[in-house]
Amino acid sequence: MIKVGICGFGYWGPNLLRTFGKNHGFQVVAIADRLPAARAAAAETPQLRLFESAEEMIDDASIDAVAIATPVSTHFPLARRALAKAKHVLVEKPMCTTSAEGEELIALARANGRVLMVDHTYLFHGAVTKLAELKQEGSLGAISYYDSLRVNLGLFQPDMNVLWDLAPHDLSIIDFLFDEEPVHVEATGYCHLNPGLPDIAYVTLHFASRMIAHLNLSWMSPVKVRRIAIGGSSKMVVWDDLDQDEKLKIYNSGIDVQPEDQRGTIVPSYRIGDIYSPRLPNSEPLVRVVEHFHRVIAGREESVMSGERGLRVVRQLEAAQRAIAAGLARNTVHGIAPALRVAR
Amino acid sequence: MIKVGICGFGYWGPNLLRTFGKNHGFQVVAIADRLPAARAAAAETPQLRLFESAEEMIDDASIDAVAIATPVSTHFPLARRALAKAKHVLVEKPMCTTSAEGEELIALARANGRVLMVDHTYLFHGAVTKLAELKQEGSLGAISYYDSLRVNLGLFQPDMNVLWDLAPHDLSIIDFLFDEEPVHVEATGYCHLNPGLPDIAYVTLHFASRMIAHLNLSWMSPVKVRRIAIGGSSKMVVWDDLDQDEKLKIYNSGIDVQPEDQRGTIVPSYRIGDIYSPRLPNSEPLVRVVEHFHRVIAGREESVMSGERGLRVVRQLEAAQRAIAAGLARNTVHGIAPALRVAR
Amino acid sequence: MIKVGICGFGYWGPNLLRTFGKNHGFQVVAIADRLPAARAAAAETPQLRLFESAEEMIDDASIDAVAIATPVSTHFPLARRALAKAKHVLVEKPMCTTSAEGEELIALARANGRVLMVDHTYLFHGAVTKLAELKQEGSLGAISYYDSLRVNLGLFQPDMNVLWDLAPHDLSIIDFLFDEEPVHVEATGYCHLNPGLPDIAYVTLHFASRMIAHLNLSWMSPVKVRRIAIGGSSKMVVWDDLDQDEKLKIYNSGIDVQPEDQRGTIVPSYRIGDIYSPRLPNSEPLVRVVEHFHRVIAGREESVMSGERGLRVVRQLEAAQRAIAAGLARNTVHGIAPALRVAR
Amino acid sequence: MIKVGICGFGYWGPNLLRTFGKNHGFQVVAIADRLPAARAAAAETPQLRLFESAEEMIDDASIDAVAIATPVSTHFPLARRALAKAKHVLVEKPMCTTSAEGEELIALARANGRVLMVDHTYLFHGAVTKLAELKQEGSLGAISYYDSLRVNLGLFQPDMNVLWDLAPHDLSIIDFLFDEEPVHVEATGYCHLNPGLPDIAYVTLHFASRMIAHLNLSWMSPVKVRRIAIGGSSKMVVWDDLDQDEKLKIYNSGIDVQPEDQRGTIVPSYRIGDIYSPRLPNSEPLVRVVEHFHRVIAGREESVMSGERGLRVVRQLEAAQRAIAAGLARNTVHGIAPALRVAR
Repeated sequence: MIKVGICGFGYWGPNLLRTFGKNHGFQVVAIADRLPAARAAAAETPQLRLFESAEEMIDDASIDAVAIATPVSTHFPLARRALAKAKHVLVEKPMCTTSAEGEELIALARANGRVLMVDHTYLFHGAVTKLAELKQEGSLGAISYYDSLRVNLGLFQPDMNVLWDLAPHDLSIIDFLFDEEPVHVEATGYCHLNPGLPDIAYVTLHFASRMIAHLNLSWMSPVKVRRIAIGGSSKMVVWDDLDQDEKLKIYNSGIDVQPEDQRGTIVPSYRIGDIYSPRLPNSEPLVRVVEHFHRVIAGREESVMSGERGLRVVRQLEAAQRAIAAGLARNTVHGIAPALRVAR
Repeated sequence: MIKVGICGFGYWGPNLLRTFGKNHGFQVVAIADRLPAARAAAAETPQLRLFESAEEMIDDASIDAVAIATPVSTHFPLARRALAKAKHVLVEKPMCTTSAEGEELIALARANGRVLMVDHTYLFHGAVTKLAELKQEGSLGAISYYDSLRVNLGLFQPDMNVLWDLAPHDLSIIDFLFDEEPVHVEATGYCHLNPGLPDIAYVTLHFASRMIAHLNLSWMSPVKVRRIAIGGSSKMVVWDDLDQDEKLKIYNSGIDVQPEDQRGTIVPSYRIGDIYSPRLPNSEPLVRVVEHFHRVIAGREESVMSGERGLRVVRQLEAAQRAIAAGLARNTVHGIAPALRVAR
Repeated sequence: MIKVGICGFGYWGPNLLRTFGKNHGFQVVAIADRLPAARAAAAETPQLRLFESAEEMIDDASIDAVAIATPVSTHFPLARRALAKAKHVLVEKPMCTTSAEGEELIALARANGRVLMVDHTYLFHGAVTKLAELKQEGSLGAISYYDSLRVNLGLFQPDMNVLWDLAPHDLSIIDFLFDEEPVHVEATGYCHLNPGLPDIAYVTLHFASRMIAHLNLSWMSPVKVRRIAIGGSSKMVVWDDLDQDEKLKIYNSGIDVQPEDQRGTIVPSYRIGDIYSPRLPNSEPLVRVVEHFHRVIAGREESVMSGERGLRVVRQLEAAQRAIAAGLARNTVHGIAPALRVAR
Repeated sequence: MIKVGICGFGYWGPNLLRTFGKNHGFQVVAIADRLPAARAAAAETPQLRLFESAEEMIDDASIDAVAIATPVSTHFPLARRALAKAKHVLVEKPMCTTSAEGEELIALARANGRVLMVDHTYLFHGAVTKLAELKQEGSLGAISYYDSLRVNLGLFQPDMNVLWDLAPHDLSIIDFLFDEEPVHVEATGYCHLNPGLPDIAYVTLHFASRMIAHLNLSWMSPVKVRRIAIGGSSKMVVWDDLDQDEKLKIYNSGIDVQPEDQRGTIVPSYRIGDIYSPRLPNSEPLVRVVEHFHRVIAGREESVMSGERGLRVVRQLEAAQRAIAAGLARNTVHGIAPALRVAR
């Protein structure tokens, strides 16, 4: 039985408590939160030790593993402390705020023989599981594009911009499905509400495999949309995560490339075919994350959300952030926007 | 009665014939098309003179005005010839393929006192009429963004890329609604089917008013989508052009900016309100274009789709094309893409 | 080449003209309509003889076949006249207004060796073709129900009620797919706008096969709905005719009946499975009706929309009409409704 | 502080515990359930007395009020016992299984001066609150119809048929909104899975106000639908309870009745207008039910879900059940169905 301490009992902490609580390989023994109200909420569950200081809880000898669900800026110091004390770590996404931090965490985990895992929950979503199957069996063909529309009326957070809030979902999914890092990252955006905190961001990733990925991220949309389209040469897929009955639609449609005609151009012809919406497993993704964490600790599985994977995502966020900052600086020259605050 | 000759009787020509035919101010007297099959189709309508050569038709003294619905590369020479012969011109979008061509056409029209109009049909779509009303009366508030998803399984054309095919719709709508030229144009894309002919393009426009516009254009989508979201500080709008019953939804939702809190950041609060879907006039946009053409010729109205407006659109297309070409060249360095053919 | 005369050139007549015109086995030679405006519209097509009197056209020796698209009350006299003169007849639905009329038409057709066919166009709709395939191959299992929601803001016609306007579609589809006549017909409804002309009707049909069919018909709905659900023991189907992309959805869902448990009741268990939306052929149904008419005349095919089939539909309409009339009479006793006018 | 005991801790009991627990006027002190597993679940909440026997709990002197969430057949005996002991009662719908039972409960409540309330939760749904407002202010005009499609893949229960399971929702809503009892109830249906337990039912209610109501109820649908359309002479409404963003759509559409024309019939003309989707309050209905229960006990409010209201619903269920039974008996004569078991 692995004894777990949870850092942070705000929005996500209670989900971690409930989910670790249902797994027979773990026992949640402690929770840390600075806020008295959060500790009072945690106190409703019997037999938990409560800490005001996350550091103190991490240092406690009875704790084998730490789950970190605190604000992003604290991910790195808390994860570092826990790994240094030889505790396993499951940290919420994004893993940290710079790639240098990420590299340090990975090195620490390796040096101390402990597991460092980033909670990219979506990787255990039924739709991603199905997409991975389709990719694996080759039924999509060569992938042309990944196109994500991920917008809503945002929950602005003072230390987070829309890029670091929403892009990790897509970046971790792309990394998992296609196992390829982009050769070039473009990004642009704008800050309407808070100077220096983009609330709209557009990110385009170019891959050596000829795939292009595009993310349309916004906190300024009156309707929530979670729509991802993936185009392959054999099949195309649309994943609408808000559709209760048919989240995934697989289009037996595509473009057949014909031999060149006399004008020297390729003449494509279209197939518009059947649409198939597979029933997805409805197991809760976080339950599968916790099971995966257990098997990785036990050495029975390699992690799909390892520190190395988390670092790749952070590197791409950094590249996109740099591009957005450059664009905002250029806009400032045009007199239409303030400089980007160093904030995520 | 203004006597009209139509150049090109392929996809759009028959619509022009039908629509000019219903307008009492015009009489279609001639049609020109190189293809015998097209002329045969035109011959079903009685009392039309048929020409193989558009130039010959344009030169005919009996013609007062010319409607040009031929491939894009011929727009400029045909329009120039017609204006030089002092005929009024209605040319399909895009007006021409370079801004230099556009400037020459405008100068010619002015010198000869003739009307040069670009058929940006969408400007007379009921949804755009309603949006213009909302903008006019100020009920949207300050505009933050215009976001267009305009994708389908494309009709590849050897002399056209997805940018020049689909972007003119959005660019002309933005120009009409907000009457503002962008200070900076970004664009990126990829050529999956035909080397040098982008089939996916992402365009971002930055405006001095702090508006950002983004176009997601694709010929590679298994489903057709025409979804435009416009965000204002007071109201937000989603225009789904494929929704038969509720094309336009106006969200009485927005973001109220609160006084800064102690952390030095702006704290937004959300209003999620009623949704209102106005009944749109269902008059056919092309009918209204032809009526407008008549009133502009008669000097009773200034054109909303003048040569100057068409030129602005071409300038933005050029800027986007340059950005896409630069990106594809950079990708080529990475070894993942061919150089962009000079083609639209 | 079979020479055709069309009776009635209002809403449907032009479709008949266009469709017969494209079929190489037929030639439309004449059109009859009482209204000068309708004849003027017909005169736009060259080489047609125009008649004010349908009877005169029918009697003309040059006519081999007649298509009848006049008001329902005239279907019987016109079809009878044509059959008596040994012309083939394609009559719009419903075939006539009483089963006695229907029997007379069938007898006449047989006596004169001519084809009597009712234009139940939906039988050649791609969705019905696909449903027939599914039924044929047994993949739906035993059918439990057919449930139709067919409502819109109605086009009231002074000689037609909602039952005779909308029910023929469903009744002909049921008859075609399941080839079974109901053993009992229930119906009820109400007249809100015109006393004696129901504008809302609910029809329930009971079949010996244990299938139940239900039709919800209304002219009083603010939104148009065309939604038919068919439940089989193996698969269930929803046909939404207004969905452009996925008209037919086949649910691999059902109810498995388990052995009885100790409480003496059957315990069903549910399968919720994949959803499959087949691409439907997009050939125009009326084109296929006309082709079918030709093959039936040529003796190469038995008709799926024969007079006998049309009669079955009329019989069910009569039974439903009687039930609605009885209900309205009972309501009158309650003081809430006028008696049903003998009108359809 | 009113002390509450909850009978039944299966599906609904935990919701009652949670909701009564949040109301400061009530304190849940005891829970009764025959099943050890249910009592074990209840034991997770501290300070609750647990009973195996609901009767014993009801008799306990410390209990002031009883909430009954047991199988329908036990509603009557438990509610009667509680009222006889002068406890307030909130009973799940349907209140009981016969109108005689309902009358006895009402009489007992009156005799003992206690509150008898039926948990018709939907009456406190935001959509019903909005509909009541529209009705109150007269903006719908004269009501023509109420049309409900309430279908899903059912949870078959051995002592319940689809009528008693699903119809109480619509019947209580109709009674609440229009405050009118039907003058005639028609119903038909079929038993596919369990002989004698209808799994599909169609109910039509006729009202003296000229309104017609129709319920399409099924446990055999592969997709869940909760769609209610209400037609008024001024506005029409569609309530789609599964639409997350726009549950209620108000159509400014209708039918204007013109003066009679020469043919002696009314000529309606159509208005198709704007569509308006009001933001609904998102307070939880059950919370409002419990608040209402408290105010009714305190004598500060008359109940909208009194025993008398519950009895009206039961009377209509009885009438519909009789009609369905008669139809099934008639079908049996046709050899197609078993007799209806006396079961609900």
